[in-house]
Amino acid sequence: MKGLHFTKMQGLGNDFVVVEGPMSFAPEQVAELCDRRFGVGADGVLVVSRDGGVVRMEYWNADGSAAEMCGNGLRCVARYVYDREWVSDPSFTILTPDGERRVRVLESSVEAELGPARLGEERVIEGHAYRLVDMGNPHAVRLVDDPDAVDVVSVGASVQTHFPHGANIEFVAMRDDGLSMRVWERGVGETMACGTGMAAAAMVAGERSSATGPVEVTVRGGVGTVEIRDGVAWLEGPAEVSFSGTFGGR
Amino acid sequence: MKGLHFTKMQGLGNDFVVVEGPMSFAPEQVAELCDRRFGVGADGVLVVSRDGGVVRMEYWNADGSAAEMCGNGLRCVARYVYDREWVSDPSFTILTPDGERRVRVLESSVEAELGPARLGEERVIEGHAYRLVDMGNPHAVRLVDDPDAVDVVSVGASVQTHFPHGANIEFVAMRDDGLSMRVWERGVGETMACGTGMAAAAMVAGERSSATGPVEVTVRGGVGTVEIRDGVAWLEGPAEVSFSGTFGGR
Repeated sequence: MKGLHFTKMQGLGNDFVVVEGPMSFAPEQVAELCDRRFGVGADGVLVVSRDGGVVRMEYWNADGSAAEMCGNGLRCVARYVYDREWVSDPSFTILTPDGERRVRVLESSVEAELGPARLGEERVIEGHAYRLVDMGNPHAVRLVDDPDAVDVVSVGASVQTHFPHGANIEFVAMRDDGLSMRVWERGVGETMACGTGMAAAAMVAGERSSATGPVEVTVRGGVGTVEIRDGVAWLEGPAEVSFSGTFGGR
Repeated sequence: MKGLHFTKMQGLGNDFVVVEGPMSFAPEQVAELCDRRFGVGADGVLVVSRDGGVVRMEYWNADGSAAEMCGNGLRCVARYVYDREWVSDPSFTILTPDGERRVRVLESSVEAELGPARLGEERVIEGHAYRLVDMGNPHAVRLVDDPDAVDVVSVGASVQTHFPHGANIEFVAMRDDGLSMRVWERGVGETMACGTGMAAAAMVAGERSSATGPVEVTVRGGVGTVEIRDGVAWLEGPAEVSFSGTFGGR
Protein backbone atom coordinates (compact mmCIF):
# COMPACT_ATOMS: atom_id res chain seq x y z
CA MET A 1 0.00 0.00 0.00
CA LYS A 2 3.06 2.24 -0.05
CA GLY A 3 2.27 5.33 -2.09
CA LEU A 4 -1.50 5.06 -1.55
CA HIS A 5 -3.11 8.50 -1.58
CA PHE A 6 -5.89 9.05 0.92
CA THR A 7 -7.99 11.73 2.58
CA LYS A 8 -8.65 11.53 6.30
CA MET A 9 -12.17 12.71 7.19
CA GLN A 10 -14.44 12.75 10.19
CA GLY A 11 -18.13 13.19 10.82
CA LEU A 12 -19.18 13.79 14.43
CA GLY A 13 -15.91 12.21 15.52
CA ASN A 14 -16.31 8.98 13.54
CA ASP A 15 -13.20 9.02 11.41
CA PHE A 16 -12.35 7.45 8.09
CA VAL A 17 -9.56 6.87 5.60
CA VAL A 18 -11.16 7.81 2.29
CA VAL A 19 -9.59 6.35 -0.87
CA GLU A 20 -10.62 6.79 -4.48
CA GLY A 21 -11.47 3.54 -6.23
CA PRO A 22 -12.41 1.26 -7.70
CA MET A 23 -10.20 -0.53 -5.22
CA SER A 24 -10.54 -3.43 -2.85
CA PHE A 25 -8.71 -4.12 0.39
CA ALA A 26 -7.82 -7.32 2.17
CA PRO A 27 -8.89 -7.31 5.84
CA GLU A 28 -5.27 -7.05 7.00
CA GLN A 29 -4.69 -4.01 4.78
CA VAL A 30 -7.73 -2.30 6.29
CA ALA A 31 -6.48 -3.11 9.78
CA GLU A 32 -3.03 -1.74 8.87
CA LEU A 33 -4.49 1.53 7.59
CA CYS A 34 -6.80 1.91 10.60
CA ASP A 35 -4.16 1.19 13.26
CA ARG A 36 -3.89 4.42 15.27
CA ARG A 37 -0.20 3.95 16.14
CA PHE A 38 1.38 2.26 13.13
CA GLY A 39 -1.06 3.21 10.36
CA VAL A 40 -3.20 6.26 9.59
CA GLY A 41 -5.72 5.55 12.32
CA ALA A 42 -9.48 5.45 11.72
CA ASP A 43 -12.77 3.75 12.52
CA GLY A 44 -12.84 2.38 8.99
CA VAL A 45 -11.91 2.72 5.33
CA LEU A 46 -14.24 4.22 2.73
CA VAL A 47 -13.70 3.63 -0.98
CA VAL A 48 -15.48 6.12 -3.22
CA SER A 49 -15.67 5.69 -6.97
CA ARG A 50 -17.72 6.84 -9.95
CA ASP A 51 -18.91 4.99 -12.99
CA GLY A 52 -20.65 7.27 -15.43
CA GLY A 53 -23.07 9.28 -13.33
CA VAL A 54 -23.16 6.79 -10.46
CA VAL A 55 -21.26 7.56 -7.26
CA ARG A 56 -20.53 4.45 -5.22
CA MET A 57 -19.18 3.93 -1.71
CA GLU A 58 -17.89 0.82 0.02
CA TYR A 59 -16.99 0.56 3.67
CA TRP A 60 -14.74 -1.62 5.78
CA ASN A 61 -14.67 -1.52 9.58
CA ALA A 62 -11.31 -1.05 11.29
CA ASP A 63 -11.12 -4.79 11.98
CA GLY A 64 -11.24 -5.50 8.24
CA SER A 65 -14.85 -6.68 8.04
CA ALA A 66 -17.00 -5.27 5.23
CA ALA A 67 -20.03 -3.27 6.35
CA GLU A 68 -23.20 -2.38 4.51
CA MET A 69 -23.67 1.18 5.64
CA CYS A 70 -22.22 3.84 7.85
CA GLY A 71 -24.21 7.03 8.29
CA ASN A 72 -21.33 9.31 9.19
CA GLY A 73 -19.15 7.70 6.54
CA LEU A 74 -21.86 8.37 3.97
CA ARG A 75 -21.88 12.04 4.97
CA CYS A 76 -18.08 12.21 4.57
CA VAL A 77 -18.28 10.61 1.12
CA ALA A 78 -20.91 13.18 0.11
CA ARG A 79 -18.60 16.02 1.14
CA TYR A 80 -15.69 14.43 -0.70
CA VAL A 81 -17.63 13.98 -3.93
CA TYR A 82 -19.15 17.46 -3.93
CA ASP A 83 -15.89 19.26 -3.09
CA ARG A 84 -14.18 17.48 -5.99
CA GLU A 85 -17.03 18.56 -8.29
CA TRP A 86 -17.93 15.02 -9.32
CA VAL A 87 -21.46 16.39 -9.07
CA SER A 88 -22.72 19.94 -9.52
CA ASP A 89 -26.03 19.64 -7.65
CA PRO A 90 -25.47 19.54 -3.86
CA SER A 91 -28.37 17.08 -3.61
CA PHE A 92 -27.48 13.70 -5.13
CA THR A 93 -27.52 9.98 -4.45
CA ILE A 94 -24.77 7.57 -3.44
CA LEU A 95 -24.95 3.85 -4.12
CA THR A 96 -24.04 1.92 -0.95
CA PRO A 97 -23.93 -1.87 -0.47
CA ASP A 98 -27.30 -1.38 1.24
CA GLY A 99 -28.81 0.46 -1.75
CA GLU A 100 -29.15 4.09 -2.84
CA ARG A 101 -29.04 6.86 -0.26
CA ARG A 102 -29.87 10.52 -0.81
CA VAL A 103 -27.44 13.17 0.45
CA ARG A 104 -27.33 16.96 0.51
CA VAL A 105 -24.16 18.99 0.98
CA LEU A 106 -24.66 22.30 2.79
CA GLU A 107 -22.21 25.11 3.49
CA SER A 108 -20.87 23.77 6.79
CA SER A 109 -22.64 20.45 7.17
CA VAL A 110 -23.86 17.45 5.23
CA GLU A 111 -27.25 15.79 5.43
CA ALA A 112 -27.76 12.12 4.56
CA GLU A 113 -30.63 9.66 4.41
CA LEU A 114 -29.94 6.86 6.86
CA GLY A 115 -32.94 4.77 5.89
CA PRO A 116 -36.26 3.63 7.38
CA ALA A 117 -36.64 3.78 11.16
CA ARG A 118 -39.03 1.36 12.85
CA LEU A 119 -39.96 1.38 16.53
CA GLY A 120 -40.08 -2.08 18.09
CA GLU A 121 -41.08 -3.52 21.44
CA GLU A 122 -39.93 -2.52 24.91
CA ARG A 123 -37.77 -4.98 26.85
CA VAL A 124 -36.66 -4.87 30.45
CA ILE A 125 -33.02 -5.87 30.70
CA GLU A 126 -31.10 -5.91 33.96
CA GLY A 127 -33.86 -3.88 35.61
CA HIS A 128 -34.12 -1.11 33.02
CA ALA A 129 -36.51 -0.53 30.11
CA TYR A 130 -34.96 -0.55 26.64
CA ARG A 131 -36.96 0.35 23.55
CA LEU A 132 -35.90 -1.56 20.45
CA VAL A 133 -35.50 0.30 17.16
CA ASP A 134 -34.75 -1.26 13.79
CA MET A 135 -32.62 1.01 11.63
CA GLY A 136 -31.48 -1.80 9.34
CA ASN A 137 -29.23 -2.59 12.28
CA PRO A 138 -30.59 -3.30 15.77
CA HIS A 139 -30.73 -0.63 18.49
CA ALA A 140 -31.88 -0.61 22.10
CA VAL A 141 -32.57 2.84 23.55
CA ARG A 142 -32.75 3.57 27.27
CA LEU A 143 -33.94 6.93 28.54
CA VAL A 144 -31.80 8.21 31.43
CA ASP A 145 -31.49 11.42 33.42
CA ASP A 146 -27.79 11.86 32.72
CA PRO A 147 -25.82 9.77 30.20
CA ASP A 148 -22.57 10.81 31.91
CA ALA A 149 -23.74 9.07 35.07
CA VAL A 150 -23.97 5.73 33.22
CA ASP A 151 -21.01 3.35 33.09
CA VAL A 152 -21.56 3.02 29.35
CA VAL A 153 -18.63 0.67 28.73
CA SER A 154 -19.68 -2.04 31.15
CA VAL A 155 -23.47 -1.60 30.96
CA GLY A 156 -23.43 -1.53 27.15
CA ALA A 157 -21.28 -4.64 26.97
CA SER A 158 -23.56 -6.47 29.38
CA VAL A 159 -26.91 -5.39 27.88
CA GLN A 160 -25.96 -6.31 24.33
CA THR A 161 -25.35 -9.94 25.35
CA HIS A 162 -29.16 -10.22 25.74
CA PHE A 163 -29.52 -9.92 21.94
CA PRO A 164 -28.73 -12.98 19.80
CA HIS A 165 -26.80 -10.91 17.22
CA GLY A 166 -25.82 -8.13 19.61
CA ALA A 167 -27.18 -4.60 19.41
CA ASN A 168 -26.16 -0.98 19.62
CA ILE A 169 -27.12 0.44 23.00
CA GLU A 170 -28.06 4.11 23.40
CA PHE A 171 -28.31 6.00 26.71
CA VAL A 172 -30.39 9.08 26.03
CA ALA A 173 -31.43 12.10 28.07
CA MET A 174 -34.28 14.32 26.88
CA ARG A 175 -33.41 18.00 27.37
CA ASP A 176 -35.38 21.14 26.61
CA ASP A 177 -33.24 21.84 23.57
CA GLY A 178 -32.82 18.31 22.25
CA LEU A 179 -31.22 15.01 23.18
CA SER A 180 -27.94 14.19 24.83
CA MET A 181 -26.67 10.66 24.40
CA ARG A 182 -23.82 8.18 24.66
CA VAL A 183 -23.64 5.06 22.56
CA TRP A 184 -22.14 1.61 22.83
CA GLU A 185 -21.66 -0.03 19.41
CA ARG A 186 -21.60 -3.78 18.99
CA GLY A 187 -18.18 -5.09 18.15
CA VAL A 188 -16.59 -1.75 19.01
CA GLY A 189 -17.51 -0.41 22.45
CA GLU A 190 -18.31 3.20 23.27
CA THR A 191 -17.88 5.46 20.25
CA MET A 192 -17.89 9.20 19.58
CA ALA A 193 -21.10 8.93 17.57
CA CYS A 194 -23.35 6.50 15.75
CA GLY A 195 -25.59 7.95 13.04
CA THR A 196 -28.25 5.26 13.17
CA GLY A 197 -28.12 5.35 16.97
CA MET A 198 -28.87 9.08 16.92
CA ALA A 199 -31.88 8.40 14.71
CA ALA A 200 -33.03 5.57 16.99
CA ALA A 201 -32.82 7.93 19.95
CA ALA A 202 -34.85 10.56 18.09
CA MET A 203 -37.53 7.97 17.27
CA VAL A 204 -37.93 6.94 20.91
CA ALA A 205 -37.86 10.51 22.21
CA GLY A 206 -40.30 11.64 19.52
CA GLU A 207 -42.95 9.30 20.83
CA ARG A 208 -42.72 10.93 24.28
CA SER A 209 -42.69 14.48 23.07
CA SER A 210 -45.21 16.81 21.53
CA ALA A 211 -42.46 18.44 19.49
CA THR A 212 -42.21 17.66 15.80
CA GLY A 213 -39.57 18.41 13.21
CA PRO A 214 -35.79 18.24 13.51
CA VAL A 215 -34.21 17.31 16.85
CA GLU A 216 -30.69 18.23 17.93
CA VAL A 217 -28.72 15.26 19.26
CA THR A 218 -25.49 15.83 21.18
CA VAL A 219 -23.00 12.97 21.17
CA ARG A 220 -19.39 12.84 22.37
CA GLY A 221 -18.16 13.79 18.89
CA GLY A 222 -20.37 16.81 18.37
CA VAL A 223 -23.94 17.85 17.61
CA GLY A 224 -26.10 16.51 14.79
CA THR A 225 -29.68 17.02 13.77
CA VAL A 226 -32.07 14.13 13.13
CA GLU A 227 -35.28 14.45 11.21
CA ILE A 228 -37.77 11.66 10.48
CA ARG A 229 -39.60 12.26 7.20
CA ASP A 230 -42.23 9.75 6.09
CA GLY A 231 -40.65 7.12 8.35
CA VAL A 232 -37.19 7.69 6.93
CA ALA A 233 -34.40 9.08 9.10
CA TRP A 234 -32.08 11.88 7.95
CA LEU A 235 -28.98 13.04 9.80
CA GLU A 236 -27.33 16.43 9.36
CA GLY A 237 -24.03 17.46 10.90
CA PRO A 238 -20.39 18.34 10.23
CA ALA A 239 -18.33 16.19 7.87
CA GLU A 240 -14.82 17.51 7.35
CA VAL A 241 -11.41 16.77 5.91
CA SER A 242 -8.80 16.47 8.69
CA PHE A 243 -5.82 16.01 6.38
CA SER A 244 -4.71 14.38 3.16
CA GLY A 245 -1.70 12.14 2.79
CA THR A 246 0.37 9.45 1.17
CA PHE A 247 0.84 6.15 2.96
CA GLY A 248 4.27 4.75 3.79
CA GLY A 249 7.79 6.06 4.02
CA ARG A 250 10.94 6.23 1.90
CA MET B 1 -2.41 25.40 10.54
CA LYS B 2 -4.25 24.65 7.31
CA GLY B 3 -1.71 23.65 4.67
CA LEU B 4 0.90 22.54 7.22
CA HIS B 5 3.06 19.76 5.80
CA PHE B 6 4.01 16.99 8.21
CA THR B 7 5.42 13.50 8.38
CA LYS B 8 3.83 10.96 10.71
CA MET B 9 6.41 8.68 12.31
CA GLN B 10 6.55 6.05 15.02
CA GLY B 11 9.23 4.39 17.08
CA LEU B 12 8.19 1.30 19.02
CA GLY B 13 4.61 2.48 18.81
CA ASN B 14 5.21 5.96 20.23
CA ASP B 15 3.94 8.15 17.44
CA PHE B 16 4.73 11.70 16.39
CA VAL B 17 3.76 14.45 14.00
CA VAL B 18 7.13 15.62 12.64
CA VAL B 19 7.26 19.14 11.22
CA GLU B 20 10.21 21.01 9.72
CA GLY B 21 11.04 24.22 11.51
CA PRO B 22 12.02 26.57 12.83
CA MET B 23 8.45 26.71 14.03
CA SER B 24 6.67 27.05 17.33
CA PHE B 25 3.23 25.83 18.34
CA ALA B 26 0.73 27.09 20.87
CA PRO B 27 -0.45 24.37 23.25
CA GLU B 28 -3.91 24.30 21.64
CA GLN B 29 -2.36 23.81 18.19
CA VAL B 30 -0.37 20.85 19.47
CA ALA B 31 -3.51 19.39 21.03
CA GLU B 32 -5.39 19.91 17.75
CA LEU B 33 -2.70 18.11 15.73
CA CYS B 34 -2.46 15.25 18.24
CA ASP B 35 -6.20 14.63 18.55
CA ARG B 36 -6.73 11.10 17.23
CA ARG B 37 -10.25 11.79 15.91
CA PHE B 38 -10.26 15.37 14.71
CA GLY B 39 -6.53 15.94 14.05
CA VAL B 40 -3.63 13.81 12.82
CA GLY B 41 -3.35 11.83 16.05
CA ALA B 42 -0.07 11.36 17.91
CA ASP B 43 1.67 11.19 21.27
CA GLY B 44 3.35 14.48 20.50
CA VAL B 45 4.73 16.95 17.97
CA LEU B 46 8.41 17.05 16.98
CA VAL B 47 9.89 20.08 15.26
CA VAL B 48 13.17 19.40 13.50
CA SER B 49 15.32 22.18 12.06
CA ARG B 50 18.88 22.85 10.98
CA ASP B 51 21.06 25.89 11.39
CA GLY B 52 24.38 25.50 9.63
CA GLY B 53 25.64 22.08 10.67
CA VAL B 54 23.47 21.88 13.79
CA VAL B 55 20.36 19.66 13.77
CA ARG B 56 17.88 20.65 16.45
CA MET B 57 14.72 19.01 17.77
CA GLU B 58 11.95 20.33 19.96
CA TYR B 59 9.13 18.29 21.44
CA TRP B 60 5.62 18.94 22.67
CA ASN B 61 3.48 16.36 24.42
CA ALA B 62 -0.01 15.72 23.07
CA ASP B 63 -1.49 17.92 25.83
CA GLY B 64 0.53 20.89 24.54
CA SER B 65 3.19 20.95 27.24
CA ALA B 66 6.82 21.32 26.11
CA ALA B 67 9.09 18.40 27.02
CA GLU B 68 12.85 18.23 27.29
CA MET B 69 13.50 14.87 25.72
CA CYS B 70 11.76 11.88 24.20
CA GLY B 71 13.91 8.87 23.37
CA ASN B 72 11.68 7.39 20.68
CA GLY B 73 11.04 10.84 19.25
CA LEU B 74 14.78 11.42 19.06
CA ARG B 75 15.16 8.19 17.09
CA CYS B 76 12.43 9.29 14.66
CA VAL B 77 14.09 12.66 14.16
CA ALA B 78 17.40 10.90 13.41
CA ARG B 79 15.70 8.79 10.72
CA TYR B 80 14.03 11.88 9.27
CA VAL B 81 17.26 13.87 9.06
CA TYR B 82 19.33 11.06 7.58
CA ASP B 83 16.72 10.06 4.98
CA ARG B 84 16.57 13.67 3.78
CA GLU B 85 20.37 13.75 3.54
CA TRP B 86 20.76 16.69 5.89
CA VAL B 87 23.76 14.67 7.08
CA SER B 88 25.90 12.17 5.18
CA ASP B 89 27.42 10.31 8.14
CA PRO B 90 24.82 7.98 9.75
CA SER B 91 26.37 8.80 13.13
CA PHE B 92 25.67 12.38 14.16
CA THR B 93 24.37 14.51 17.02
CA ILE B 94 21.04 16.21 17.59
CA LEU B 95 20.61 19.21 19.86
CA THR B 96 17.64 18.68 22.20
CA PRO B 97 16.32 21.03 24.90
CA ASP B 98 18.16 18.70 27.30
CA GLY B 99 21.48 19.03 25.44
CA GLU B 100 23.27 17.15 22.66
CA ARG B 101 22.45 13.51 22.00
CA ARG B 102 24.32 11.11 19.74
CA VAL B 103 22.37 9.03 17.22
CA ARG B 104 23.21 6.38 14.65
CA VAL B 105 20.94 5.44 11.75
CA LEU B 106 21.17 1.79 10.70
CA GLU B 107 19.53 -0.01 7.77
CA SER B 108 16.31 -0.95 9.53
CA SER B 109 16.66 0.65 12.94
CA VAL B 110 17.94 3.74 14.70
CA GLU B 111 20.10 3.91 17.80
CA ALA B 112 20.08 6.92 20.11
CA GLU B 113 21.81 8.02 23.28
CA LEU B 114 19.19 8.50 25.99
CA GLY B 115 21.59 9.85 28.60
CA PRO B 116 23.09 8.80 31.93
CA ALA B 117 21.32 6.06 33.89
CA ARG B 118 21.65 6.00 37.67
CA LEU B 119 20.33 3.28 39.98
CA GLY B 120 18.70 4.59 43.12
CA GLU B 121 17.26 3.10 46.29
CA GLU B 122 14.68 0.36 46.65
CA ARG B 123 11.28 1.31 48.04
CA VAL B 124 8.44 -0.93 49.12
CA ILE B 125 5.15 0.50 47.88
CA GLU B 126 1.80 -1.17 48.45
CA GLY B 127 3.59 -4.38 49.41
CA HIS B 128 5.92 -4.63 46.43
CA ALA B 129 9.58 -3.68 45.94
CA TYR B 130 10.29 -0.93 43.41
CA ARG B 131 13.82 0.02 42.41
CA LEU B 132 14.23 3.68 41.60
CA VAL B 133 16.20 4.72 38.52
CA ASP B 134 17.10 8.27 37.52
CA MET B 135 17.18 8.68 33.74
CA GLY B 136 16.87 12.46 33.87
CA ASN B 137 13.24 11.60 34.59
CA PRO B 138 12.17 9.39 37.53
CA HIS B 139 11.45 5.68 37.13
CA ALA B 140 10.35 2.94 39.52
CA VAL B 141 10.97 -0.60 38.28
CA ARG B 142 9.23 -3.65 39.71
CA LEU B 143 10.30 -7.16 38.73
CA VAL B 144 7.33 -9.44 38.09
CA ASP B 145 6.77 -12.94 36.72
CA ASP B 146 4.34 -11.84 34.04
CA PRO B 147 3.65 -8.19 33.11
CA ASP B 148 0.40 -9.24 31.42
CA ALA B 149 -0.87 -10.48 34.80
CA VAL B 150 -0.51 -6.97 36.28
CA ASP B 151 -3.39 -4.47 36.17
CA VAL B 152 -0.94 -1.85 34.86
CA VAL B 153 -3.50 0.93 34.51
CA SER B 154 -4.70 0.92 38.11
CA VAL B 155 -1.49 -0.23 39.83
CA GLY B 156 0.61 2.30 37.90
CA ALA B 157 -1.77 5.14 38.71
CA SER B 158 -1.77 4.21 42.38
CA VAL B 159 1.99 3.63 42.79
CA GLN B 160 2.98 6.90 41.16
CA THR B 161 1.03 8.88 43.77
CA HIS B 162 3.74 7.84 46.26
CA PHE B 163 6.22 10.11 44.43
CA PRO B 164 6.03 13.86 44.99
CA HIS B 165 6.46 14.66 41.26
CA GLY B 166 5.05 11.36 39.99
CA ALA B 167 7.13 8.71 38.28
CA ASN B 168 7.11 6.31 35.37
CA ILE B 169 6.36 2.81 36.60
CA GLU B 170 7.80 -0.24 34.84
CA PHE B 171 6.62 -3.84 35.34
CA VAL B 172 9.43 -6.06 34.07
CA ALA B 173 9.87 -9.81 33.62
CA MET B 174 13.36 -11.26 33.13
CA ARG B 175 13.31 -13.94 30.41
CA ASP B 176 16.08 -16.12 29.02
CA ASP B 177 16.26 -14.00 25.89
CA GLY B 178 15.77 -10.55 27.39
CA LEU B 179 13.16 -8.47 29.17
CA SER B 180 9.43 -8.19 28.71
CA MET B 181 7.77 -5.12 30.16
CA ARG B 182 4.77 -2.86 30.36
CA VAL B 183 5.00 0.77 31.34
CA TRP B 184 2.79 3.37 32.95
CA GLU B 185 3.90 6.93 32.13
CA ARG B 186 3.16 9.84 34.42
CA GLY B 187 0.59 12.18 33.00
CA VAL B 188 -0.31 9.69 30.27
CA GLY B 189 -1.16 6.20 31.55
CA GLU B 190 -0.09 2.93 29.97
CA THR B 191 1.83 3.50 26.74
CA MET B 192 3.15 1.35 23.90
CA ALA B 193 6.73 2.09 24.88
CA CYS B 194 8.92 4.44 26.88
CA GLY B 195 12.57 4.68 25.84
CA THR B 196 13.94 5.79 29.18
CA GLY B 197 11.74 3.21 30.92
CA MET B 198 13.27 0.46 28.81
CA ALA B 199 16.73 1.66 29.84
CA ALA B 200 15.67 1.80 33.49
CA ALA B 201 14.45 -1.79 33.24
CA ALA B 202 17.75 -2.88 31.70
CA MET B 203 19.68 -1.20 34.53
CA VAL B 204 17.70 -3.03 37.22
CA ALA B 205 17.82 -6.37 35.43
CA GLY B 206 21.52 -5.97 34.71
CA GLU B 207 22.30 -5.87 38.39
CA ARG B 208 20.61 -9.26 38.87
CA SER B 209 22.12 -10.93 35.85
CA SER B 210 25.59 -12.15 34.97
CA ALA B 211 24.96 -11.23 31.32
CA THR B 212 26.63 -8.14 29.91
CA GLY B 213 26.17 -6.26 26.68
CA PRO B 214 22.97 -5.36 24.85
CA VAL B 215 19.63 -6.57 26.20
CA GLU B 216 16.47 -7.04 24.16
CA VAL B 217 13.43 -5.38 25.69
CA THR B 218 9.95 -6.26 24.46
CA VAL B 219 7.25 -3.63 24.97
CA ARG B 220 3.70 -3.44 23.65
CA GLY B 221 4.91 -1.46 20.63
CA GLY B 222 7.71 -3.78 19.57
CA VAL B 223 11.22 -4.87 20.49
CA GLY B 224 14.15 -2.59 21.21
CA THR B 225 17.70 -3.16 22.38
CA VAL B 226 19.21 -1.32 25.32
CA GLU B 227 22.91 -1.06 25.99
CA ILE B 228 24.57 0.75 28.88
CA ARG B 229 28.01 2.06 27.91
CA ASP B 230 30.06 3.89 30.53
CA GLY B 231 26.90 4.61 32.51
CA VAL B 232 25.09 6.05 29.49
CA ALA B 233 22.01 4.31 28.06
CA TRP B 234 21.53 3.73 24.34
CA LEU B 235 18.35 2.45 22.74
CA GLU B 236 18.14 0.80 19.33
CA GLY B 237 14.91 -0.12 17.54
CA PRO B 238 12.64 0.62 14.60
CA ALA B 239 11.77 4.24 13.74
CA GLU B 240 9.63 4.54 10.65
CA VAL B 241 7.54 6.88 8.55
CA SER B 242 3.86 5.87 8.65
CA PHE B 243 2.67 8.49 6.16
CA SER B 244 3.17 12.06 5.07
CA GLY B 245 0.44 14.62 4.71
CA THR B 246 -0.98 18.11 4.58
CA PHE B 247 -3.19 19.35 7.40
CA GLY B 248 -6.71 20.62 6.83
CA GLY B 249 -9.29 20.42 4.08
CA ARG B 250 -10.53 22.51 1.19
